[in-house]
Amino acid sequence: MADSLTFAAVGGAHPHAFNQIGILLGAGARCAGFYDDDPAVTAAVITRYPGMDTALSLDRLLDDPHIDLIVNTVRHDRRAALGIEAMRRGKDTLCAKPGFTTLAQLDEARRVQAQTGRRYWVYFSERLASRATVKALDLVRAGRIGRVVQTLGFGPHRLFGGNQRPDWWFDSAQHGGILNDLASHQIDQFLIFTGSQNAEIASAQIGTARFREYPGFEDFGDLVLRSDSAAGYIRVDWLTPDGLPTWGDVRLMLIGTEGSIEARKNIDLDGRAGTDHLLVVDQRGVERVSCDDVELPFARQMIADVRDRTDTALPQAHCFTVCELALRAQASAVRLSFAG
Amino acid sequence: MADSLTFAAVGGAHPHAFNQIGILLGAGARCAGFYDDDPAVTAAVITRYPGMDTALSLDRLLDDPHIDLIVNTVRHDRRAALGIEAMRRGKDTLCAKPGFTTLAQLDEARRVQAQTGRRYWVYFSERLASRATVKALDLVRAGRIGRVVQTLGFGPHRLFGGNQRPDWWFDSAQHGGILNDLASHQIDQFLIFTGSQNAEIASAQIGTARFREYPGFEDFGDLVLRSDSAAGYIRVDWLTPDGLPTWGDVRLMLIGTEGSIEARKNIDLDGRAGTDHLLVVDQRGVERVSCDDVELPFARQMIADVRDRTDTALPQAHCFTVCELALRAQASAVRLSFAG
Repeated sequence: MADSLTFAAVGGAHPHAFNQIGILLGAGARCAGFYDDDPAVTAAVITRYPGMDTALSLDRLLDDPHIDLIVNTVRHDRRAALGIEAMRRGKDTLCAKPGFTTLAQLDEARRVQAQTGRRYWVYFSERLASRATVKALDLVRAGRIGRVVQTLGFGPHRLFGGNQRPDWWFDSAQHGGILNDLASHQIDQFLIFTGSQNAEIASAQIGTARFREYPGFEDFGDLVLRSDSAAGYIRVDWLTPDGLPTWGDVRLMLIGTEGSIEARKNIDLDGRAGTDHLLVVDQRGVERVSCDDVELPFARQMIADVRDRTDTALPQAHCFTVCELALRAQASAVRLSFAG
Repeated sequence: MADSLTFAAVGGAHPHAFNQIGILLGAGARCAGFYDDDPAVTAAVITRYPGMDTALSLDRLLDDPHIDLIVNTVRHDRRAALGIEAMRRGKDTLCAKPGFTTLAQLDEARRVQAQTGRRYWVYFSERLASRATVKALDLVRAGRIGRVVQTLGFGPHRLFGGNQRPDWWFDSAQHGGILNDLASHQIDQFLIFTGSQNAEIASAQIGTARFREYPGFEDFGDLVLRSDSAAGYIRVDWLTPDGLPTWGDVRLMLIGTEGSIEARKNIDLDGRAGTDHLLVVDQRGVERVSCDDVELPFARQMIADVRDRTDTALPQAHCFTVCELALRAQASAVRLSFAG
């Protein structure tokens, strides 16, 4: 297994755990075990992965020298402590988003990451697991729409689908807030698509429009970003209507000096079937670009980064910048009243 | 003609003049004449409307007691003076947008409008001439998507199409700026769709991303609005690529507590033919709502308002509030650098 990677997965606080386990197994990595202190969560993981070893303690997994990486999907506010401890014990870590719930956690992770040289990745799946988004980035980098002037990112989500949400979800300190959670995807995309190293938060707003029975929970948020080269706008919400046949009509819209791109990641409303709809308008016409053959390179690149100590899959500095902007947007957000 | 209306049209600084003349003639109004001090503009109007009387001076039109209303499409920065003079001479006025280029003009128009009881309308055609938008408002007022949480309005435009732009277009004082010009449409829609009397400007940005040869001209702008009940985001630009088969992929997206609406006003990219595409998602499903039979009531209502001194077509206070927000957004906008 010298060329591949061995990981353990810790925490099933969110079904995102399965996505991360899935991409690693799909890329040839080996899972040495799963740990969660909730037996119900562990039982659900065994149902999904019947061969999964769930007998080992967290300490045994963290101390096992054959384990390279900890997949970290514990509760939002506990994620940093686990990721930092994993780095201290010589392991890389791949978190679900949000990577942090406080700036103090981020500061400590940056410090320990620099000391140990281990990696603290956050899986920004709305780019890294989205064929339309990966393809859009290829087109942008090839100059198809000129310089990117603005990115627009919409991340609507369904609050209650097949799964109910745990109690901690509705506690602002434990959840960390809507901008820090959902908008981190779109902040990642803003920086990547515009080639910006950092950004200024021009405006940030949060509010509870529909789910007022949960006062510690925000179901709407938006923010404006700007960098030296481009502008960005992000809207996220938990207001996906029940009638939408997917969890959210997630979109990325790019305005360039020579064209525009719209990625309809999950659904093309009353249009074509399937996912990953990519519409390009340039100086010559309108084109629907197929994303069928697009590779999602993240897991492969990350496994190589773990092995070779390179920084290709999701550069560490970029990852921390995204988390910092998400935390700062959340902390500075104006609360909307949504009266009426 | 007791039941109808007689108007004169002044200024052909923008093809918008034809739109306003067209809706009035279509609603049964009579045009008493056209005036522009540029013979080339007058010649173009005669080509379009061969029977148009272009022999009368501006003063003769403004003093004619049989003329009820002045259609006002002179240069942006001259519009207020003409509209105010029309009101002083006992006439209502229907401007193209922008209605004003300075807050001082708006203040004077408010004062004279209150004194004279005449009307100063601005033709927000991206709502009033858009069947999909009129239908969307019907659906919202019928409660189809619950309370409106946010409006998103995108107003991309093509800078150079069949017509070149006059020199004054690229002078910021004469043009008045992108947010004051284009975003006034979306500000109107924010207030109307959310039922807000007014709004706060949370963020405003402008910049010149592509057409840098015109330093007094902005080709990108955006702003964030909030009211007691809702949030709004607006992006406008002059970056429509040549390959788009219309002047702009103008959209309105509404998020409600019980559903969402997307109006693709001019084009459904690689989708259905024609204009006025209205997509509704609610708790039951996704529906494409036909706009074929939608009436555009603005001209009919305005003619009745002129006759009956009612305030139904575009309430005067609302119209001035839109103009004020557009002027304030423009004046407070942060300039983006778009380096690179």
